[in-house]
Amino acid sequence: MGCLRMGEVDTLIQKALKGDKVAISKILTLVENDPNVVNYLPRTLWPEKPRAHLIGVTGSAGVGKSTLIAALIDEIVGDGASVAVIAVDPSSPFSGGAFLGDRVRMVGIKNVDRVFIRSMSTHSEEALPLKALLASEVLDSLGYDYIVIETPGAGQFNVQIVNAVDTVVVVLMPGAGDEIQALKAGVMEIGDVYVVNKADMPEAELTYNQVSFALSNVERDWKPRILKVSALHRIGVRDLYRVIKEHFNFLQKTGIINEKRVRRRELELELIVRYRVMSSLTRLINQDDRAKKIYNELLAGKLNPVVAANELVNLMIKSWRLDTEVK
Amino acid sequence: MGCLRMGEVDTLIQKALKGDKVAISKILTLVENDPNVVNYLPRTLWPEKPRAHLIGVTGSAGVGKSTLIAALIDEIVGDGASVAVIAVDPSSPFSGGAFLGDRVRMVGIKNVDRVFIRSMSTHSEEALPLKALLASEVLDSLGYDYIVIETPGAGQFNVQIVNAVDTVVVVLMPGAGDEIQALKAGVMEIGDVYVVNKADMPEAELTYNQVSFALSNVERDWKPRILKVSALHRIGVRDLYRVIKEHFNFLQKTGIINEKRVRRRELELELIVRYRVMSSLTRLINQDDRAKKIYNELLAGKLNPVVAANELVNLMIKSWRLDTEVK
Repeated sequence: MGCLRMGEVDTLIQKALKGDKVAISKILTLVENDPNVVNYLPRTLWPEKPRAHLIGVTGSAGVGKSTLIAALIDEIVGDGASVAVIAVDPSSPFSGGAFLGDRVRMVGIKNVDRVFIRSMSTHSEEALPLKALLASEVLDSLGYDYIVIETPGAGQFNVQIVNAVDTVVVVLMPGAGDEIQALKAGVMEIGDVYVVNKADMPEAELTYNQVSFALSNVERDWKPRILKVSALHRIGVRDLYRVIKEHFNFLQKTGIINEKRVRRRELELELIVRYRVMSSLTRLINQDDRAKKIYNELLAGKLNPVVAANELVNLMIKSWRLDTEVK
Repeated sequence: MGCLRMGEVDTLIQKALKGDKVAISKILTLVENDPNVVNYLPRTLWPEKPRAHLIGVTGSAGVGKSTLIAALIDEIVGDGASVAVIAVDPSSPFSGGAFLGDRVRMVGIKNVDRVFIRSMSTHSEEALPLKALLASEVLDSLGYDYIVIETPGAGQFNVQIVNAVDTVVVVLMPGAGDEIQALKAGVMEIGDVYVVNKADMPEAELTYNQVSFALSNVERDWKPRILKVSALHRIGVRDLYRVIKEHFNFLQKTGIINEKRVRRRELELELIVRYRVMSSLTRLINQDDRAKKIYNELLAGKLNPVVAANELVNLMIKSWRLDTEVK
């Protein structure tokens, strides 16, 4: 982003602060293309004290996460609050680069003014958690009350995002026997709120009871809630919104919210360091002949990856040193 | 591992090369405790040309992965080959630090001589793929024909391991409607072989048909196979072994095996660089006052993570430079 003109960015930022969604979207694109851009953003676009309520909505494909989020948006907006959605699920109907009214209308959301929807390109899965978290910080500083991150139930980036938000909503659907198995095995003990969506289906009651049973032994200060919801028919969504707010109150009263935000910043640091190092390494292997040689010897099995890593890291340090000396 | 005495390690290596399982296990513990140990291993413990067939067995908790692996071990050993299992699933009965006969007998495996079972501690999830891959390379160089890595169907390390092996076996059980949903959505299009385990259950036929349907549109040179198996009653396991070998032949004939091994080494490099950098960063924050200050300002929201990362990486480079100068 060396070609970024500061005047242009200033204009964008002024517009974004006034709620111009095209400007907000352009800023998020800059951050998505190169997270280092955060370096050049003014303090107004980075929240010293996070204020927004970060909600992760996770679950397998087909359980109705997007419909649920659309219904939740209506509740939030009806309550006078604002909400931004970041969809990092390639199968989400929010996805596909859309961020404006057409998609919003598509899912039937009213009061588009207080709603911002952004989908992230899932091409490079590696950097997704970093990009989603940086985007959520920018949206927080722009004053959105709620930030909802939609993630698929699987994939390596899912876990990191789920660990970084304030409230985790796990969406299930009736008959999800296997996921309840997973719940029991502790693999999925991640939710603060469990939603049995499509509650009009006949097996809903059974699934609800299974989830309740699976969670009955969970010993935590916050006892996970289970709700029967039909997002499509807007049944139980208000209860869901109430429980989500209740969880946020719980986090604030106990001070856990501060621990969560600290952990989030630690994760952001780790991800940005990793991003910077891996970008350097890739650049080095593409541009430096010595690095290329080490890399080829690694691939040929002549060097093991630990030895190769040591030599490449040494070369990387030297290149950084040169960078520092030049500046 | 600075206190590692080279004489001791030499003795261990000599014993390991003769097939002493306690020695092999000790070497793997060294690698697990600090992947940098690979640096000090002799070339005899690093395969210049990988030879083993790496198989990933993945699936949700409760589908019977471990029972299936136990049955598969019998087929492999009965065929005159040797096999090492690396279990990185905390819910695996192989897990718990056991590596010797008692566990092996527990699951009913014969010919213990050609079988090595190792479970990895899942405490620090972050470094698991690196540790599992390094362990598999050491086991390859020790001459094991098959290396089976058992991973849970979820978690961020799962995806990396699954991407790094030669053959991916996805284990399902009858009635796994949700996972088949996931299959359809492309989230789980990772398997080379799909096993509908517990095929004696009434819904087995239906699930088999659903999986077949879900996979019918998959266009790949290798058409994923679907098998009905009852690992417990040892039905269909020989077919599974045959199909796994068929897939390896396919990989060899097409040369894809070489691409896979190259990608594996690239991943190993990336993971070891990341491991080294993150260890350095943690050490720096714990020991260097300037680093500690930056870190605290980050947590207090006074610095954004990109700025903090830049400053910490600069400090890290300086500390590495000192290291290099001292040596």
